Formats: sequence, C-alpha cells, structure tokens
Amino acid sequence: MTSLPIGLFDSGVGGLTVLKALRSSLPCEEFLYLGDTARLPYGTKSQETIIRYAVQAAGKLVERGVKMLVIACNTASSVAIEPLQQAFPDIPVLGVVKPGAAASCAATENGNIVVLATESTIRGNAYQREIYNIREDVQVTGLPCPLFVPLAEEGWTEGELVEGIVARYLNPLFSSPLETAQRTAPDTVVLGCTHFPLLAPSIRNVVGDGVHIVDSAETTAQEVKKVLTDRGLLQKKTECGGTLFLTTDDISRFARTGSWFLGLPIEVGDVELVDL
Amino acid sequence: MTSLPIGLFDSGVGGLTVLKALRSSLPCEEFLYLGDTARLPYGTKSQETIIRYAVQAAGKLVERGVKMLVIACNTASSVAIEPLQQAFPDIPVLGVVKPGAAASCAATENGNIVVLATESTIRGNAYQREIYNIREDVQVTGLPCPLFVPLAEEGWTEGELVEGIVARYLNPLFSSPLETAQRTAPDTVVLGCTHFPLLAPSIRNVVGDGVHIVDSAETTAQEVKKVLTDRGLLQKKTECGGTLFLTTDDISRFARTGSWFLGLPIEVGDVELVDL
Repeated sequence: MTSLPIGLFDSGVGGLTVLKALRSSLPCEEFLYLGDTARLPYGTKSQETIIRYAVQAAGKLVERGVKMLVIACNTASSVAIEPLQQAFPDIPVLGVVKPGAAASCAATENGNIVVLATESTIRGNAYQREIYNIREDVQVTGLPCPLFVPLAEEGWTEGELVEGIVARYLNPLFSSPLETAQRTAPDTVVLGCTHFPLLAPSIRNVVGDGVHIVDSAETTAQEVKKVLTDRGLLQKKTECGGTLFLTTDDISRFARTGSWFLGLPIEVGDVELVDL
Repeated sequence: MTSLPIGLFDSGVGGLTVLKALRSSLPCEEFLYLGDTARLPYGTKSQETIIRYAVQAAGKLVERGVKMLVIACNTASSVAIEPLQQAFPDIPVLGVVKPGAAASCAATENGNIVVLATESTIRGNAYQREIYNIREDVQVTGLPCPLFVPLAEEGWTEGELVEGIVARYLNPLFSSPLETAQRTAPDTVVLGCTHFPLLAPSIRNVVGDGVHIVDSAETTAQEVKKVLTDRGLLQKKTECGGTLFLTTDDISRFARTGSWFLGLPIEVGDVELVDL
C-alpha cells in the first residue's frame, strides 16, 4: 500500500499547482494525476454532473491503484468530497478547500479575509462556508477574478500589465476610503483557485509584504503529508518518485499548458489518453 | 408572418452584440433572444452536444413563433447551421460566421486577414474554412485571444490596461520584424467572437486607422435585413419594435451582464426563465 502513488484529479491543468506543491513537500512519493480536460470547466456544471464526473475521475485513479485521493479542483472539492468519501471508503480523500480555509483562519490577525477565486467558486460560497465553520468571528469577502484563469493559462503571470489587472481587482478592497471608518483592509488573501498560485508574485507586489497570502495548493500538500504520516502510508524508499499523467483530451496540449502549472516540462511520453 | 419576431440564440449574453446591431439596422422589428446561460460555454463541448443544444434552443424560439432564426453564437454557427436548417426548413436560418467571412474577403486589399476569436473557434477553423471557400488567394491567420471574453464580461473595454492586453496579442502580427522580408501585416481584422465588438475601440487604437475591422455582428445584421427584404418578411408597422429575453439561468445576472453587451439597460421584467 505505501508504495502506491497518490492520486490527484482536476478538470484540467490547474490542479498541477497542487501536484507541484506535493512533489516539493513529498519528493519520494509517486503521483498519478488525471486532468479531465475534455469536460472542463466543471465550475459551470450542475452539482449532479460535477459529482458524477468526480466519481468517474476518482474511479479511474482507484482502478489504477492509489493509496490516497486528492481533489485538486476547487469546484469538485466543494461539491463532491462527501460523495467521493462514500464511494471510496478504503482510502483517505482530501480536497483543497478545507486546508485553505483552515490556513486562512490561522493566519489572519485582524479577522478580515478575502478569498480570490472564479465566479462559480465565489457564488458557491464553499470557502466562505468552511471559514465560518472554523471561526465565526471573522469577516470574509469573496472576490471573483475571472481574468486570472486565462492570464495563468496564457502564461502571462508577471509584469506591469498583469499587476495592473491584479490591482484593478484588489485595490478597491485594499485602499477603500471606508477603511478607517468602517473596517480595516484584509490582512489575509486566500488563493481559492488552483490557477492562482502562478500569479502569487504579482499579487504580492500589489498587496505588499504585510498581507498573508494563503496558497491552497501548499496548505493541501501539508495536510496530505500529515494524513499519510498519521496512517503510516508514507513511501519507504528514499529515491525520487515519478509522476504519470492521464488526460481525457489532446495530449500535446496537456503537456504544453501543464508545464506552466507544474513549473517543469511535461514529456508527452508521460501523458496517457484515457476515456472516462 | 411578417409581424412575428426574429429569433436569436447564443450560449450566453455575447449574442446580444448581434441583437444590438440588428435593432439598430431594423428598428421596427420585434426580437426574441434566448441565452442558454445554464449550459455555457458551448465552445468546449462536443459537436454532437452543440448540435443537440442548438436544436433545443432554436426549437424553443420556433415554438414561441419566429419568422427567422439567427444563430448569434460562433460555435453554434460553425457546427450546427446545417442541422438547424434541416430541423426548421420553413424559416430562414442564418449564422454569424459566413457574413463575417464574406465581409472580410470583400474588405481586404492586400489579402492578409487575421481572425480574432476564442481558442475553440480558432481550433475549429470555421472562419478560415469559410474565407478560403470564398477566396483562395488570401492568407488567413487565426489568433486566439482568451482574455478578451472575460474582459468584455467584466465591462473592462477601454483604457490603458485593456489596450495593453490587445497590443500584447496583436503587436506580433502588426509589427513583426519579418514584415518587410516575408509578408505584409494584415489589413483586415475579423472580430470572430460575439464578445469582441465591445473591445472594437481599443482594437482600433492598437491597429490604427489603416486597418479594416470586420464586426461579425454588423455584417450579420446586414445579411438578415437582406434576407427579410428578399422574402418580403419585413415588419409592416413603423413604430419601434420590442425585445423579449429568455434565459436558462439566473435572470438578474443575465440582465446585469447583458446590458453591457446590448448597450442598453435590460429590465428584469423583460427576461423570462425557460427550461430546454
């Protein structure tokens, strides 16, 4: 069991930022990543459809043999975690929302948190709900940033133009004239979309050094490590683990775009086309 | 028959730029617009699904009574025009791709055309194919501009930031070092996505006055007027016509976002929720 890979899935390549954090924090582990690119985005689909797709994607990973499931997708994490835990009761199943929510509650000092995410994640209130479950005394603002996903996918992640876009979204919250009168500016920013860690340096330049930036990918990686350690499921070997990629659409496109998100080149030979 | 409305559909609010052009060119006509917002985007779906959705959307319009069908959606226009013409043989069915392609062939002088569109429209080659059907002597470059759709949807349509994004996409084509050696810069830009007319002023500022900008929405409106005139289907009355909107998801969201695209406020009372 310990020698099996950790399975991750996402609707596309965004979840590779979670894989990147996992590979960095657990270098000896093997990974099996599935990107359901043929059916992306999940965010605009009904809950029933998202659950069905998530169970199919996870089922493919389990069929190949994995010791743990990580839902590397905000939409699927918020909607499908319980159905997945019921469908695969023998292995731990973890999403990205809860670790990010917990980390933001631990980080904030002034109790003012802003969650940056896609419009569908913000409308679904997943982060807001999880944060309020942990702490009732905080104030959470959900800020949809629809341009961030195509920016990350284009590989436009830094420079004046990108910071201009980030500032246009964030400045109203961080330099509001109401700040002194009614409330303080947020001291914690949650990156509530797997695409957004690519923009973290630009977001940092805009919000300044005094603000905590909570990266769901990193907090999820820490949680995965904790779960594997607690259950005695860590790899025994000490050499570096490898990763195999599965995708439901164009392999070369997955490899090309995915490399941005993983921060490493993905070889076409390491990507396999699967049908769900 | 002449008193019936013209029916239009799109996967969302983008097609409202086509409605805007139609209302301006045919002010006495009545319009019935359907935005299938619950199932957007169409661009990432399979051909079979797009055809099924398009026939359902058009069927809803025909059921209400329309004298003509306009496919105000690039994806559906390129994939579903023939199935729609077969499904509804009694009324004229027109898409946005052919009129835009024809207009670009008529406009270009140096034979170098660039089509700006979403990634799925460019990959589907619909404009390229139609243009080559009309003229074999031209050179067509398809340029995917994934940031333009969220820019238009955010209402970020002008200013330095927007022109910076437009320039980042277009400058390589318009100021290539290869220009003098190998080929001339394009003299015709096709706005191959219903969202893009909102960005036309910024695109104009970037490409300069010497370039033709072909707006598919406007060329489609001209073609609709021609078809109705030829068939004796124009409204007989002389007062202004009205528009009723149908949507498959959140009414207030449709009215709010849609107003940007229509260039006029949409009253929530004029929007009806329908199920397809």
